[in-house]
Amino acid sequence: MLSGLYAFPLTPLDEQQLHLGAFTQIISQLSAAKIDGICVAGSTGSYAYLNREERALLVKLAVEAAQGTPVMVGIGANRQRDVLQHLYDAQHAGASSVLLAPLSYQPLSDREVFGLYETVSQASSVPVCVYVNPRTTHFDFSDELLTQIARLPNIASIKLPGIAAEQCEANRVAQYWRGLLPERVTLGVSGDAHAWAAIAGGFDIWYSVLAGLYPAISQALFRSAQAETEEINRQLEPVWQLFRQHGSLRVVAAMAHLAGITPCDGLPRPLQPVADNVLTDIQAVMALLRW
Amino acid sequence: MLSGLYAFPLTPLDEQQLHLGAFTQIISQLSAAKIDGICVAGSTGSYAYLNREERALLVKLAVEAAQGTPVMVGIGANRQRDVLQHLYDAQHAGASSVLLAPLSYQPLSDREVFGLYETVSQASSVPVCVYVNPRTTHFDFSDELLTQIARLPNIASIKLPGIAAEQCEANRVAQYWRGLLPERVTLGVSGDAHAWAAIAGGFDIWYSVLAGLYPAISQALFRSAQAETEEINRQLEPVWQLFRQHGSLRVVAAMAHLAGITPCDGLPRPLQPVADNVLTDIQAVMALLRW
Repeated sequence: MLSGLYAFPLTPLDEQQLHLGAFTQIISQLSAAKIDGICVAGSTGSYAYLNREERALLVKLAVEAAQGTPVMVGIGANRQRDVLQHLYDAQHAGASSVLLAPLSYQPLSDREVFGLYETVSQASSVPVCVYVNPRTTHFDFSDELLTQIARLPNIASIKLPGIAAEQCEANRVAQYWRGLLPERVTLGVSGDAHAWAAIAGGFDIWYSVLAGLYPAISQALFRSAQAETEEINRQLEPVWQLFRQHGSLRVVAAMAHLAGITPCDGLPRPLQPVADNVLTDIQAVMALLRW
Repeated sequence: MLSGLYAFPLTPLDEQQLHLGAFTQIISQLSAAKIDGICVAGSTGSYAYLNREERALLVKLAVEAAQGTPVMVGIGANRQRDVLQHLYDAQHAGASSVLLAPLSYQPLSDREVFGLYETVSQASSVPVCVYVNPRTTHFDFSDELLTQIARLPNIASIKLPGIAAEQCEANRVAQYWRGLLPERVTLGVSGDAHAWAAIAGGFDIWYSVLAGLYPAISQALFRSAQAETEEINRQLEPVWQLFRQHGSLRVVAAMAHLAGITPCDGLPRPLQPVADNVLTDIQAVMALLRW
């Protein structure tokens, strides 16, 4: 059952190498924080910029450092052949589940996306999470297609982008999907700014960028959403604003560098770090995140 | 000087392998047809679905089979590190020029795209063509950004998507860009349906999908555009319609299979071949392409 709080850690890297010491330290701290799960090589882990060897190595190190905390692995790639290789590598290294977005270069039809999930769900021996992320994949799932995919074997969760800013609206969305999806498929939210509303509104799992760096305050936010008290979420509004303005990856990469957790800006070129004046804003909100 | 008719051949492949015999045969025929240039691993060559080893091998075989015909090579990738590796491999194998689109997973800023072209143009010892393709890259160049990039060293051509269906409008677009770009940067059109109008309107180079499979009729169309006689273009309208409906890659892949040039549908999964009733339509228009 994929539920609770899943953290999406960075993959510390520069143009020459992966910083594996920093990576395993991040994973160890997430495990020590007793997070519900860790997703390695998610969007925040820059999976789309890493080759097969790098991705396989990250999963291997993460499973070791996680010490029993379930590890989910992003297996997306433009080519289905590569997706299946990433799936194989992830399973071989002991991943507990996998995360798959329909990446593409040529725009994909519904039939092609269904075929991809059909093939992968059959090949997988671990639960598969369907990653809906139109901002990066430029693929829009229709409700009908997502429902068809959710009925495939091994599909265990749907990771939806933040769509509802208010608890009541999130509850409406949750009810809608509960009526369409098999019971075993959990409802997940990404887009940290919308996590409180989604969890308070009845979603099962928060796929969290912030938790990859700040597990304690993310756990507190998750519990406060379950208890339907909104104070922490209000306090974090400046963080969500920065995420909206600059993208959560660029912001947490800057935070990790400022905090001395990573030895460099950590973004794969052509991605570039935020400008110096934004760094000042980021440093200011980091005080909110100590817990 | 990048000008004339450049052909974009398919990369025949299935989920198990590249079909190298079919590939070199296609290249040899393009060379025998005395095409102005051959772009290996372009969009039609499925570059975004191939790994480094496959792309390097294709360039090596293409340069050999091209027997002196200039070979351009698609070097795009999500990560700049990989772009530079593809550039290195292409130059090492004897490529005459390279083609670069700003691929991304995380949406790119103008500053990031400029940084990519700046880095690559400095690293390149061959001419670089800027590949504008919002349909696959989801990046929209502003006119200002494209102009700035065109002024970088080694930038030799701009490959624009087909934007003008009429000669007079294409001529207006050509005049506009001539006023902005350095003289050494040639104006290229892709989107075969718009090639006649663009060439008749004063563009320098047709980056052609159709020529990858049918060089003779493409050369005839190119010459007819220079002579401003439109008959061949009108005859080919059913081909352009199929390209618009199903994407040029899926259509030429089906044509190559129907003609016995490739031993399989040739599309990297999750891409799937067109439906059987579309195959019948494609077979019907292939009679138009004998020349």
